[in-house]
Amino acid sequence: MADQKLPSRSEDYSEWYNQVVLRAEMADYAPVRGCMIVRPYGWALWENITAALDKRFKATGHVNAAFPLLIPKSFIEREKSHVEGFSPELAVVTIGGGEKLEEPLVIRPTSETIIGHAYSKWIQSYRDLPVLINQWNSVVRWELRTKLFLRTLEFFWQEGHTAHATLDEAEFETRQMLDIYADMAFRDAAIPVIPGRKSDSEKFAGADITYSIEAMMGDGKALQAGTSHNLGQNFAKAFEIRYLDKNGQLQHCWTTSWGLSTRFVGAIIMVHGDDQGLIMPPRLAPFQVVLVPIFKTDDEKISVMDAARKIRAELVAADIRVKMDEREGFSPGFKFNDWEMRGVPLRIELGPKDVSKGSAVLARRDRPGREGKIFVEQAGIAGSVAKLLVEIQQALFDRALKARLDNTREPKDYVEFKQAVEGGFALAYWCGDSACEAKIKEETKATMRCIPLEQDEGSGVCIFCGKASNYKAIFARAY
Amino acid sequence: MADQKLPSRSEDYSEWYNQVVLRAEMADYAPVRGCMIVRPYGWALWENITAALDKRFKATGHVNAAFPLLIPKSFIEREKSHVEGFSPELAVVTIGGGEKLEEPLVIRPTSETIIGHAYSKWIQSYRDLPVLINQWNSVVRWELRTKLFLRTLEFFWQEGHTAHATLDEAEFETRQMLDIYADMAFRDAAIPVIPGRKSDSEKFAGADITYSIEAMMGDGKALQAGTSHNLGQNFAKAFEIRYLDKNGQLQHCWTTSWGLSTRFVGAIIMVHGDDQGLIMPPRLAPFQVVLVPIFKTDDEKISVMDAARKIRAELVAADIRVKMDEREGFSPGFKFNDWEMRGVPLRIELGPKDVSKGSAVLARRDRPGREGKIFVEQAGIAGSVAKLLVEIQQALFDRALKARLDNTREPKDYVEFKQAVEGGFALAYWCGDSACEAKIKEETKATMRCIPLEQDEGSGVCIFCGKASNYKAIFARAY
Repeated sequence: MADQKLPSRSEDYSEWYNQVVLRAEMADYAPVRGCMIVRPYGWALWENITAALDKRFKATGHVNAAFPLLIPKSFIEREKSHVEGFSPELAVVTIGGGEKLEEPLVIRPTSETIIGHAYSKWIQSYRDLPVLINQWNSVVRWELRTKLFLRTLEFFWQEGHTAHATLDEAEFETRQMLDIYADMAFRDAAIPVIPGRKSDSEKFAGADITYSIEAMMGDGKALQAGTSHNLGQNFAKAFEIRYLDKNGQLQHCWTTSWGLSTRFVGAIIMVHGDDQGLIMPPRLAPFQVVLVPIFKTDDEKISVMDAARKIRAELVAADIRVKMDEREGFSPGFKFNDWEMRGVPLRIELGPKDVSKGSAVLARRDRPGREGKIFVEQAGIAGSVAKLLVEIQQALFDRALKARLDNTREPKDYVEFKQAVEGGFALAYWCGDSACEAKIKEETKATMRCIPLEQDEGSGVCIFCGKASNYKAIFARAY
Repeated sequence: MADQKLPSRSEDYSEWYNQVVLRAEMADYAPVRGCMIVRPYGWALWENITAALDKRFKATGHVNAAFPLLIPKSFIEREKSHVEGFSPELAVVTIGGGEKLEEPLVIRPTSETIIGHAYSKWIQSYRDLPVLINQWNSVVRWELRTKLFLRTLEFFWQEGHTAHATLDEAEFETRQMLDIYADMAFRDAAIPVIPGRKSDSEKFAGADITYSIEAMMGDGKALQAGTSHNLGQNFAKAFEIRYLDKNGQLQHCWTTSWGLSTRFVGAIIMVHGDDQGLIMPPRLAPFQVVLVPIFKTDDEKISVMDAARKIRAELVAADIRVKMDEREGFSPGFKFNDWEMRGVPLRIELGPKDVSKGSAVLARRDRPGREGKIFVEQAGIAGSVAKLLVEIQQALFDRALKARLDNTREPKDYVEFKQAVEGGFALAYWCGDSACEAKIKEETKATMRCIPLEQDEGSGVCIFCGKASNYKAIFARAY
């Protein structure tokens, strides 16, 4: 798959993305329009993302469970905004076991309703609260314009659903989970996301408040990479999720939900990739190191493979995820290109000369050519590799942050604003009015991505209407 | 949930099962008929089963991926036996995004067809083989008679799908995966399953050979707990999965599939449970130890909780899964019953007297009353606990094996055969003829569970028709 050149990112970013996803064997198109197959290499990245999140969920007291795929259609209709938001996107099962069903079933587009129904049975007393459940699954939304990982009919995600005694606790939970997403993005994915609050027109159908983490892609567009919703008492009222408080009074619960999906894989590809293909952040990379033994004669093969196996064993013992490329009939050059396409952060080249000198060549994926080559001793190579992986992780983050800062402007007027959103983020005062937001979108194709939680002190005037405002918002075109 | 007594197993095994599943909060009924909610405690057990299998799959070179939920209906129809087997059980999506679909889609009942389609694109050459992919997901089969975990419309499982260059390799893979299931059942679940071959009438729709592991439940009935199929070239021919061999000849691949589902959770419940509730095998138990601090006064609380926290820390450091029950307003007796219902293998009771003596009481779940109590020093308690957990694991296995042997008879004639299958397994010579198998089923409700791979030497005559036979088969009534 590495024998043809990718389109460059500058000439056709969208096609570069499609090609790199297919050629690196991250995903493939499924026979059903808009569905995807996540191939083993893509799934290995997603498994590492799930592990990074799951341990954070469990450390904060959450447990996993599994709720059904099939939801009675009437459930979706119980919460007013929810039905408006999701009805147009439903996949509906009308036949089961050869018979027409009395009530059609929908494949879950998200599980607030069916979980709300369960919570109404399970929760009786304040002693039962909080309920902190997450599930890893897939959901189906009938999207019209699809793109691998970024927007597919079926996508894979986790959805957390919690119930609390008070609004304060629910808001704490909502923000805590947003923080967890941001922390995973920063530390593990090396993506400098911006946590913030969505506008009313962009919030989840049924939420009082939606928070998101927003990331800047390689072309300056925004991608919503995870969301956390304070659902207030909307679903508690629609599904009668109630508890007896300490005074024996019946109260409605306060609920939250939060999700992060395989979209995030798309974010990693678009933030870090270059014209040679993917670049995987070491902490999430399926393979952190690829080891390429190089030899011509049978004698060379014996000594090189012997040294290569020792290196592999040392890396495995140090918990480094290493792949040895032993494929026969492929040149070292072909293998180098292939693993560059797949974005393995570090390559070890090991030839007969290296073996005789007791050294090896390390090549950084994030620094092409000579500049990224380091010569190290074979003795203690796990230490050198571990240190380099940390450096690469940091370098990817620094580069992504620099790109984000370089492509974020604070326009002084609407003319500058329009220029800013051509290829990046505009950070500007906004009055909070949906009318301004809608007009900006109509005129510039940029949407209000979020009101960042971190705000400088000060105030100004709305970039569109000139009304007073004391917070800035990020506007950008988005995936 | 522990305040009412369970029905005893001897008086109503089926109702005992239903009650223990609900009261131990393993699962709940979903609003859609025949679907289940796997609650956090049940899911934690399933997560441990998945981890036990996943590491074995990866150690044998398998990788995970994700194929879509939705399959074009026409795919199911391409393999003749497959369509006959699965057509009556399909859930069909006919509406998407508000529009009637041109081609109906089915929710996967299993994924041979959609994966076959993908493999036909991905596999070109012998260099691409073998392909060894597994996926963790859920599937939907429109079952009429359902029971939590044992048979549900939607169930959770893994399905492995592999493609090989030769029949021998495919058969090796099929048997290897059967061995992995048996090994997990033996070592981790403490269930002495019997690996064997299914008859033609019981094999998977589309397989040449189906192997299974069969387990005996507490009432002497059989449960098929995992299956591994050699699919021959049936799906390779239906989906044109072909490769160029070393001589440049186009060949059809040989494929396999194998699966183990949340049924296995039902097996664990039925094999090990007793009249007090569940008994979890330590190696898979969500909590291996429950720690119950006991105190009355505030002073006692301080010293007991202090000692309890130290014990918990020591157990956590030794990688023992421990739950401390700090619930207020519940008596120790209530807590003991509650955790007995949930089957935690070992309980630590810690009261003020224990604290003053530097000791603790350990109570084994598998040995009720005084007999199961052990007094240990708090110093080095992790070692005592670890040792006991190994003993409990072994004791559960020994008990299950004894029950299986005690309830398996080798009838000398058909009269004895009919008695044997009233409450256990009959191991008898069988001629291999489907006609005999069908008549036995009609007359005794017992089905041919498997022809065990392990056979004594010798030969005899078919228990039903008297024809010569050189292998014995297991017959039993089954879930």
